[in-house]
Amino acid sequence: MPKTLAEKIIQQHTQEPAEAGNIVRCRVDMVLANDITAPLAIKSFKAMGADRVFDRDKVALVCDHFTPNKDIDSAEQVKTVREFAEAMGVTHYYEGGNVGVEHALLPELGIVGPGDVVVGADSHTCTYGGLGAFATGMGSTDIAAAMALGETWFKVPPTIRVEISGTPQPHVGAKDYMLRLIGEIGVAGALYKALEFGGPAVEALSVEGRMTMANMAIEAGGKAGLFAVDDKTIAYARRAGRSGNQAMTPDSDAGYERVVVIRLDGMSPQIACPHLPDNVHSVDEVAGLRVDQAVIGSCTNGRIEDMREAAAVLKGKKVSSRVRCIVLPATPAIWKQALKEGLIEVFMEAGCVVGPATCGPCLGGHMGILAGGERAIATTNRNFKGRMGSLESEVYLSNPAVAAASAVVGEIVHPSHI
Amino acid sequence: MPKTLAEKIIQQHTQEPAEAGNIVRCRVDMVLANDITAPLAIKSFKAMGADRVFDRDKVALVCDHFTPNKDIDSAEQVKTVREFAEAMGVTHYYEGGNVGVEHALLPELGIVGPGDVVVGADSHTCTYGGLGAFATGMGSTDIAAAMALGETWFKVPPTIRVEISGTPQPHVGAKDYMLRLIGEIGVAGALYKALEFGGPAVEALSVEGRMTMANMAIEAGGKAGLFAVDDKTIAYARRAGRSGNQAMTPDSDAGYERVVVIRLDGMSPQIACPHLPDNVHSVDEVAGLRVDQAVIGSCTNGRIEDMREAAAVLKGKKVSSRVRCIVLPATPAIWKQALKEGLIEVFMEAGCVVGPATCGPCLGGHMGILAGGERAIATTNRNFKGRMGSLESEVYLSNPAVAAASAVVGEIVHPSHI
Repeated sequence: MPKTLAEKIIQQHTQEPAEAGNIVRCRVDMVLANDITAPLAIKSFKAMGADRVFDRDKVALVCDHFTPNKDIDSAEQVKTVREFAEAMGVTHYYEGGNVGVEHALLPELGIVGPGDVVVGADSHTCTYGGLGAFATGMGSTDIAAAMALGETWFKVPPTIRVEISGTPQPHVGAKDYMLRLIGEIGVAGALYKALEFGGPAVEALSVEGRMTMANMAIEAGGKAGLFAVDDKTIAYARRAGRSGNQAMTPDSDAGYERVVVIRLDGMSPQIACPHLPDNVHSVDEVAGLRVDQAVIGSCTNGRIEDMREAAAVLKGKKVSSRVRCIVLPATPAIWKQALKEGLIEVFMEAGCVVGPATCGPCLGGHMGILAGGERAIATTNRNFKGRMGSLESEVYLSNPAVAAASAVVGEIVHPSHI
Repeated sequence: MPKTLAEKIIQQHTQEPAEAGNIVRCRVDMVLANDITAPLAIKSFKAMGADRVFDRDKVALVCDHFTPNKDIDSAEQVKTVREFAEAMGVTHYYEGGNVGVEHALLPELGIVGPGDVVVGADSHTCTYGGLGAFATGMGSTDIAAAMALGETWFKVPPTIRVEISGTPQPHVGAKDYMLRLIGEIGVAGALYKALEFGGPAVEALSVEGRMTMANMAIEAGGKAGLFAVDDKTIAYARRAGRSGNQAMTPDSDAGYERVVVIRLDGMSPQIACPHLPDNVHSVDEVAGLRVDQAVIGSCTNGRIEDMREAAAVLKGKKVSSRVRCIVLPATPAIWKQALKEGLIEVFMEAGCVVGPATCGPCLGGHMGILAGGERAIATTNRNFKGRMGSLESEVYLSNPAVAAASAVVGEIVHPSHI
């Protein structure tokens, strides 16, 4: 039977027919948890009577959310994870100077890659779909079982095909494509479905850009977001140290539940306004709104391309004295690359606060929490009420260029207008 | 009557005789509060019925402790301070990209300088004694009154003269001199007294080194710690944009309560062991103790010299995988200078976590809090029980070279032994 990308990858990991709607037992190539979710998974793991992980090389534990430890509770959580990693001999344990935001770090290190099935106790695990992996977030109990067994079960999701075509305008990129899609289909528009992206604009995207898009599949309710594996993906995976990567496309006659077409011609940068990622407007509609904070980073937009995009806007400019502009390169390698390219210098000269690789303010963790009445523009992925702090604060989601430009002006602005 | 440095400076700010034991009303040149203490001071200020600060150029409000905002409470505190600063037209308000650790920032900007009387709602306000200021910490209510009136009252402190002589050994500097002193006289050894530092080793110190020493006067209970104003001080103050700085020495026949002599010959780097700054031992006595974290920064040792000292040790080396080595340059200017000199690169290549200018973990604020059973070596100023996190954690105080070397080895070590 012809298969979508999701079905193809799952089929390679199960004996049962991987067709939309079937429930299948499925091998997993990597099981992920972080400093918030791993302690819960470890508790379940122990309660199940498990005493070893199925494969010490196929579990990744990344302490990235509340680190450097924001308080005693987070320090105790990290300690729990560290001790478990040591006891189980987990190869891929990350903390301190090695840590990066998990969904930027694991692709960069080749720990996840094309064709993999990845499950993670983090909703943005879907990021790896940018590499042509079937990757999805799960609860900590399911992750505990997967850590012990090396397999899990799925209902194979039906797929929505998303075709993106047309010519992107200046300062419009992957983040904008995805915000536009979520704006069109809504936060439940892909509920328990796979989003499969294609079309010329997607082929033109870098792997990093594809990960930005796949990352937000969950913001439309998606079980996963997938891109074909092409030469760019294979080159990326090779640089990350993976061998044996093969091209993969969906079958031409695969069955889709629906096809959504996004046309880029004439599209301005997109902004998701409070308090849902589908409350999407053109930047022109919200321009002029005062901002107190700009955040440039996260698993959505904390990669080197994002740093370059923000730095290109900030170079030779100054952040408004009324704005805290917080820049968080998502991994140590990205941080060092940004340093080498002079981007860190650009950020510091512009008056940004440059912090370490952490999820930080994205989830209201630390390193930039909002008071009541404050408004942030952020390259992050969620703008739920209270997501970055006070229930009386607001988060507007944008691409890095818009966030940087808004930091300079002190209000939301199109980067071409500064 | 012949005068100590403390008496001389106070006398220039009062009509009453500034002699040890007298209570005097005293003009103040600068009144300081931070994001923890300013909200309390503002509350008292309003309760007093005050509606304006005595001089908008002579109040400094620095949001450095829990910033970038670690949580909603800290965000609300910063907002309170910001709104007060705006309402009062306070010139020296610092937040976001402008902020540095207060006691590194204000000297650097020339906001405090030689001959000043400075009061701050922060115990380490005594730092400015390194510049030849009489500077002391006070409670938030006293600071509220000083913000409103531009004056305060003191009992003029008696002075302990500290003479430091001899030749410093490799990796022994200002921090070690001060730890040695505190070890000798105890945490109450200078209670409500001024510590006045002199001798050839002190004259040889940079102004930054003198600030490191003055900073910890409070750790011996001191009301202030003072250094004479010499050519180095005047050059420092001039670079910081201050004019009219004049040399100042104590009168040769000034009355001291006591003279303490510290001899440097043969002295190793000093470590203050848990849980008091006077539990001071030679590094050789505690070498081999495992550490989980190293912190390089703070108002004590976050200046450019400290960054250079740490980087010299870390260059070409790797931080132990068991250690989080957190480097926090104390101001944006120090951060940028460290960037320019390649020190940030050294830290990143060594596997440090480089963070923004914040007090952070020093006071258990954020950015590196310890779990139970964890041990840190830190260039900070206090190692009280629970100071950096759990009541079951431990903090060892050292100079930057020792902290850096210990991060590499994973245990406390003399920098000459790595």
